[in-house]
Amino acid sequence: MSSRLADGKTIILRIELDTDRAQFGQAATAIEQARGDIVAIDVIHTDRNKSIRDLTVKIAEQGASERLTAALRSVPGIRLLHISDRTFLLHLGGKITIQPKTPIQNRDDLSRVYTPEVARVCQAIHEEPSKAYTLTIKRNTVAVVSDGSAVLGLGNIGPYAAMPVMEGKAMLFKQFADVDAFPICLDTQDTEQIITAVKNLAPAFGGINLEDISAPRCFEIEQRLRQELDIPVFHDDQHGTAVVLYAGLLNALKLTGRTLREARIVVCGIGAAGTACTKMLLAGGAQHIIGVDREGILTSERTYDNPMWQWYAENTNAERRSGGLAEALACADVFIGVSAGGILTRAHIETMAKGPIVFAMANPEPEIRPELAEDIVAVFATGRSDYPNQINNVLCFPGIFRGALDSRATTINEEMKLAAAEAIASVISDDELNRLYIIPSVFNGRIVEEVRRRVIQAAQQSGVSRRQTRE
Amino acid sequence: MSSRLADGKTIILRIELDTDRAQFGQAATAIEQARGDIVAIDVIHTDRNKSIRDLTVKIAEQGASERLTAALRSVPGIRLLHISDRTFLLHLGGKITIQPKTPIQNRDDLSRVYTPEVARVCQAIHEEPSKAYTLTIKRNTVAVVSDGSAVLGLGNIGPYAAMPVMEGKAMLFKQFADVDAFPICLDTQDTEQIITAVKNLAPAFGGINLEDISAPRCFEIEQRLRQELDIPVFHDDQHGTAVVLYAGLLNALKLTGRTLREARIVVCGIGAAGTACTKMLLAGGAQHIIGVDREGILTSERTYDNPMWQWYAENTNAERRSGGLAEALACADVFIGVSAGGILTRAHIETMAKGPIVFAMANPEPEIRPELAEDIVAVFATGRSDYPNQINNVLCFPGIFRGALDSRATTINEEMKLAAAEAIASVISDDELNRLYIIPSVFNGRIVEEVRRRVIQAAQQSGVSRRQTRE
Repeated sequence: MSSRLADGKTIILRIELDTDRAQFGQAATAIEQARGDIVAIDVIHTDRNKSIRDLTVKIAEQGASERLTAALRSVPGIRLLHISDRTFLLHLGGKITIQPKTPIQNRDDLSRVYTPEVARVCQAIHEEPSKAYTLTIKRNTVAVVSDGSAVLGLGNIGPYAAMPVMEGKAMLFKQFADVDAFPICLDTQDTEQIITAVKNLAPAFGGINLEDISAPRCFEIEQRLRQELDIPVFHDDQHGTAVVLYAGLLNALKLTGRTLREARIVVCGIGAAGTACTKMLLAGGAQHIIGVDREGILTSERTYDNPMWQWYAENTNAERRSGGLAEALACADVFIGVSAGGILTRAHIETMAKGPIVFAMANPEPEIRPELAEDIVAVFATGRSDYPNQINNVLCFPGIFRGALDSRATTINEEMKLAAAEAIASVISDDELNRLYIIPSVFNGRIVEEVRRRVIQAAQQSGVSRRQTRE
Repeated sequence: MSSRLADGKTIILRIELDTDRAQFGQAATAIEQARGDIVAIDVIHTDRNKSIRDLTVKIAEQGASERLTAALRSVPGIRLLHISDRTFLLHLGGKITIQPKTPIQNRDDLSRVYTPEVARVCQAIHEEPSKAYTLTIKRNTVAVVSDGSAVLGLGNIGPYAAMPVMEGKAMLFKQFADVDAFPICLDTQDTEQIITAVKNLAPAFGGINLEDISAPRCFEIEQRLRQELDIPVFHDDQHGTAVVLYAGLLNALKLTGRTLREARIVVCGIGAAGTACTKMLLAGGAQHIIGVDREGILTSERTYDNPMWQWYAENTNAERRSGGLAEALACADVFIGVSAGGILTRAHIETMAKGPIVFAMANPEPEIRPELAEDIVAVFATGRSDYPNQINNVLCFPGIFRGALDSRATTINEEMKLAAAEAIASVISDDELNRLYIIPSVFNGRIVEEVRRRVIQAAQQSGVSRRQTRE
């Protein structure tokens, strides 16, 4: 369980060497003394008394970059022109590209893909609009839409700064599920304008993935778009998290001999993700859920201004418990945290039922660090990639959209989400299942196909498929 | 000057052969007797008494497809399952795809292009928004935006049916100028909604190519977007046509020993394209332009409800001629038609100055067919690919956007359009220039680079470039 940062990072230094005054060895020595490891050298330019080189350097520790920069600057005859790290280099010019599927090599090609021949294709769609699914990119293309109001842990950074996340998401869609996804970062945070914009740009797309839109606007935006569009609209922050949590929980319950119906579940943090997780658990048959937020346990004995909390209080906590997190956790089987780092203590966990399940999914800092509690829990999961059992949305969205597109579903409904969760859980066999392996890796090659297959089935059985698909 | 259609087209027939009752040779004979030429056979499926095959067949004439279908259906034991032609096959599933620039092969890659590392890139853009040009797709990406209200010669066929044209345009952008272009077909024809939608989706893009939006809405939409966005907005139907016309006219004038300033020019059809062409000619120094539309010569002695005509009347026809097309053409040097097929007669042309220039650009049927007048004109150009001297927007938009993106221009101004036109004209040397070759082919490899170079220069000189670019 080593921390990612400890694995080090790679930086690229562009240096100019005045060859009359310094030798490359001096630069290398300075870098090594600052504990940098030179792994590649590219000569960019050389003339009689000057040499420009890019040095790829691995650095192990925080602060090494600053030390290294200072060390190089102290060598006479060496100028540090530029410093970039691999993450930034990967982002230069953006991360996705748009390609023709066939080259246009001559006038004949041109006349088929463009005027005059393309007119016949346009005419065919005009006469039968459903042909948009066979004759345009619609059948394989998803819009990844954000307004930049709630990006990762960064908050409201706006549409320009949100682009790298949406481009990254488009890469994942393609890489994992061969879905063409295009990032749309909207320059408005007005609910009505967002709804109108997405409706207006929908014709090119077979589905809409909403992303990093802050609550409570995200609820209305999703709900309205689901009503007003005939293609799937899926707010990944809510439902992607819910599906993957549900998958992990299914396996954790199986491993500890519990059932969802009987398990006593505490959900901590009743925002978009917490509500979506709870709705899935209820749809799956859970009977004993208690929600806790800043004001303590949500109970139908109170009324709340926040409509999400009001809904929550009315639909959970049947035994009307009151109090705070401690009161909620007494004898609970499952803790689901989508709240804030460090709010759960070892003492809290000790009051839970024997062999409890803890999903501490706050990012980047979980509600409690695994190392502080792993000896007293049966199963521990987080949202982080540097611990076992990562609850990661990447397990869900590629496959669920693949299935929705392939069945030309009009929506992604509860049945499809439950099917996706069961598919993800099923990728781990009973033989493989253990406390450090309740959820598969995102690089497990079987996930997307399994999710797709079950999602198509669920779409057909629930009557939202527009297409008979061979599996 | 052979017609494109006469070159024939390719169709693909899927047949099912009942092998107990028919042999493949019978199908081949039927096709050949119907004057089809089988150029490829693909076996799709075979079992004991059934064989499904795709036959690629060239047909030479109009109607051959129907004859062929009938012939095949008359053979017992052969079923014609499906018939598709190459144009439709090229459109299956759409014509473009979105690709990651680098593969995501492991967790380390994932953590750089997506969470958690991507957060540092987002943060950098949040702190300095201009970094969107280096760290996202913005610097190389153009939106091709239409509302489907005036698509090719098809008219108002809506956003779904317009998609194949916009996808085709995206292919051309990539193929000719390595610009990433994405089609946005808007599900609204309301001017304000279009303006708002385009403004809202602008953050991802470095430029907006408006396409196939009907007049007069296209003027307001373009004008407002040019004012309200800090990236180039270019309505190709207007300005692309104007730039290429201007390029061709420069060479036609040179060839016939005329100057733009002195030439007497008649523009027929004062819509979006006619007005844009006229504005460029005026910007280039033309002094004698007369416009003609359905109500005759536009003159400042009348007032017009149509604001475009009103502007036109006030800015052209200094000698206040009146009458119709015949009166306008007397002694004119140049006819520019962007109106309707067949409205120009040989008798009209005979009243023009000696060695006149005729640009008959109505599509698909020109104002007069070249074969009816080529013996009495000095230079003849059309919008068609099956005659010499095709005035084709593809000569302009890839290079002009390449130059605008590379200079990070805030707009595409008159200087840049004139520079693009001069670049296109300059690709034909004085030695090469002749009456059948006044405008280069779209496959001429020098065009984009030449247009790009001059457009960047013009952007810098006119102060709209945001970047020093090496040429």
